[in-house]
Amino acid sequence: MAIPHAGSGEPINVQPLGAHLQSTKTKALFKSEDLEVIRLVLLAGKSLPPHKVPGEITIQCVEGKIDVTAHDKSHLLVAGQLLFLAANEVHGVIALEDASALVTIALKK
Amino acid sequence: MAIPHAGSGEPINVQPLGAHLQSTKTKALFKSEDLEVIRLVLLAGKSLPPHKVPGEITIQCVEGKIDVTAHDKSHLLVAGQLLFLAANEVHGVIALEDASALVTIALKK
Repeated sequence: MAIPHAGSGEPINVQPLGAHLQSTKTKALFKSEDLEVIRLVLLAGKSLPPHKVPGEITIQCVEGKIDVTAHDKSHLLVAGQLLFLAANEVHGVIALEDASALVTIALKK
Repeated sequence: MAIPHAGSGEPINVQPLGAHLQSTKTKALFKSEDLEVIRLVLLAGKSLPPHKVPGEITIQCVEGKIDVTAHDKSHLLVAGQLLFLAANEVHGVIALEDASALVTIALKK
């Protein structure tokens, strides 16, 4: 069942949050049939513990610096870098600086 | 069948192309089981004619300015704006300025 947060055809701002980063929470920008896009906000030192999702994902760092641990190694992502992770790949994320990232998830029925 | 252009776990640069835009061609950054990500490069005045794909897509303008026609109206996207389009939504793209965009496609088996 589609739970759109933004409808098909409405532009969504995904610019860096800048001065608003510290007051912004992680949220789903939309979730539909095949895709979910989340804007992840992590303040310096905060982390997401290792987890996995059933579909493939991309993590695009929008601002700041994050470290994604997957495939038993760490991957430093700065603004403008994108990481692709296979389905069911266990991954954890830690922010090395206040950071936001776009996470796109291929949904599995 | 997965045809990875970049493996799971390798960061991919998706920064603005800047001075390299005019000499860069559209290319798939990777194509896997569930997701394909393309960096679309369109010079001012160039366009993609109306077409559709079987899965949902997002179009994220990285630099410049593009107009996406879908749902019988036009959607102006500047850098940092993302448009979600439903599966099989007919859409065309024209560049109003030299532009690049990340296109993420949910693949259908």
